[in-house]
Amino acid sequence: MQLSERNLIEYIRKKANASSRGLIKGIGDDCSVFGNSNSGSWLISTDMLVDGVHFKKDRHPARLLGRKSMAVNLSDIAAMGGIPRYVLISMSLTPELSSEWLYGWLDGVYEILDEYDCILIGGDTVSGKEMNISVTVLGEQHPSGSLFRDGAEIGDTVYVSAPLGLSAAGLAILEKFDKQVIEKKWDMLIQAHLDPLPQIRLGQIICESGCASAMQDISDGLATDLGHICKESGVGAVIHENLLPTHVLLDEACLTLNLEKLGCILCGGEDYQLVFTVRKGCEKKLEDSLARSGKFSIVPVGKIVRGQGVILVEKGGARRDIAFRGYEHLI
Amino acid sequence: MQLSERNLIEYIRKKANASSRGLIKGIGDDCSVFGNSNSGSWLISTDMLVDGVHFKKDRHPARLLGRKSMAVNLSDIAAMGGIPRYVLISMSLTPELSSEWLYGWLDGVYEILDEYDCILIGGDTVSGKEMNISVTVLGEQHPSGSLFRDGAEIGDTVYVSAPLGLSAAGLAILEKFDKQVIEKKWDMLIQAHLDPLPQIRLGQIICESGCASAMQDISDGLATDLGHICKESGVGAVIHENLLPTHVLLDEACLTLNLEKLGCILCGGEDYQLVFTVRKGCEKKLEDSLARSGKFSIVPVGKIVRGQGVILVEKGGARRDIAFRGYEHLI
Repeated sequence: MQLSERNLIEYIRKKANASSRGLIKGIGDDCSVFGNSNSGSWLISTDMLVDGVHFKKDRHPARLLGRKSMAVNLSDIAAMGGIPRYVLISMSLTPELSSEWLYGWLDGVYEILDEYDCILIGGDTVSGKEMNISVTVLGEQHPSGSLFRDGAEIGDTVYVSAPLGLSAAGLAILEKFDKQVIEKKWDMLIQAHLDPLPQIRLGQIICESGCASAMQDISDGLATDLGHICKESGVGAVIHENLLPTHVLLDEACLTLNLEKLGCILCGGEDYQLVFTVRKGCEKKLEDSLARSGKFSIVPVGKIVRGQGVILVEKGGARRDIAFRGYEHLI
Repeated sequence: MQLSERNLIEYIRKKANASSRGLIKGIGDDCSVFGNSNSGSWLISTDMLVDGVHFKKDRHPARLLGRKSMAVNLSDIAAMGGIPRYVLISMSLTPELSSEWLYGWLDGVYEILDEYDCILIGGDTVSGKEMNISVTVLGEQHPSGSLFRDGAEIGDTVYVSAPLGLSAAGLAILEKFDKQVIEKKWDMLIQAHLDPLPQIRLGQIICESGCASAMQDISDGLATDLGHICKESGVGAVIHENLLPTHVLLDEACLTLNLEKLGCILCGGEDYQLVFTVRKGCEKKLEDSLARSGKFSIVPVGKIVRGQGVILVEKGGARRDIAFRGYEHLI
């Protein structure tokens, strides 16, 4: 019998009993939520990263990989509008790993945890043949509550934070060129891939605005991550190619490397921006409050509609369902 | 520079800041403890298990390995006297893994979680070359508080729950004999190794008795785990060979397989019993309350003393420090 990760997760979700005392949100969102609504609830999420699958140790500077190992987990807290507090780290270390590398990695870990006022409270180290980093992050639920995937309603506006596609372009540059000859102008793209920042503060502002109905982080690409919101909310979405945020460097990289820009934006993944839905009539309030902060760029890209799937309306007017499409299936 | 796991953990502990708001116990105990003492605190612990290092997938029935993967984590909650509530599981799955194996493993996971009123609330699955199981367990702190490693005081009596050494003997039998020819009489030893039970209820009773000053589970062997209590409490311990609990099956297995019984008991590990210290004058109260329950066997094996290390007084009267000694260094 062939093993299917999707079947496995469906099986686990079916067996999950979300009615347990104190469990507010079980399997099926960026974080699980537990605790006591009177005295504060907790968000928890875990991610496992394997060398050669999720990162390439030899190409990723140790300090930046330390930062990214935390960032991808902190991003799950951002996706709920939460406040990061604690992490636990388990690592399988291979014999050839040097102390220099490991302490460099830890420097990156501590650096980003400090930036987000989060601390390391536990973990485990083991010896293995394959380097594996398993991180669990705990956050406090925002006093306004959490934003789940399942709250989107028909008529809501779909927003993304920008830019998108930069991490995919950065990865393509790293794969195409030797490190020594990479031009300085690509720094921002490379950084988007090697050192993404979780949108913690943006998530909190969206959460406290009371304007949003659903949210999640963009780790697998908008096509997939908006697909999750639609599936969990029992709705569809229509987004427009000509509304998607772009970036001058992304345009240039796509020309230089012959990349499909739409693929980078919709399916590139690892942007760790946010996709969220805003209640009808609430859009201006949220846009104004973010404009005042002056730090964040959010863009309306479409609407939540009756039905299912994520429909992309191309510049020419053609429509197609891109929900859960990976890069290779989009183009 | 040679990588040392002990140096790494010391480095991490030094950098840990346990004074963070809401953090009651950071790195350095069976669990970390966080939350709000008015509204209930939470225990959290994580363990990583690698195929070929911590278990042998081909020799461990899937269902029992599912149970054991949870048991070793639940045991960390037992070590604090806590109440298990939630687990998160991340797994790196190898291509050759069959669905049958995985669903069998999951059956074992659900079975033991049900037994301890604990539920699966999240996780991650990834593809890798080496099977790796990373489990995070969350428990509620017992209303009486938690028992830490660092509370032992001079004059306290050292207790262990029994039996000890059975898991090591069970492993030796599994390694010596083909499965088909293993005699039925060894079932209890085999089970101690393949399907250990976390001492959740015992931990809670010890905790609510108010008699104990420190506790931890015996995962690495009494020599090491009592060593942790002594180190964290800044004291020493003297234990007596002739007080150590034994078991008729262990005696028989040691004769048959030419095993060193003292090594199994002190350094065998994986027993998941408890070692704890009881305040002077409180011993009888605790022994009586456990005798009434009729389910648990606890044995006083020595005393907490001024100094450091774990001194074993042999039957002949010789004394030696066995703290943190593994099996191979004891004999």
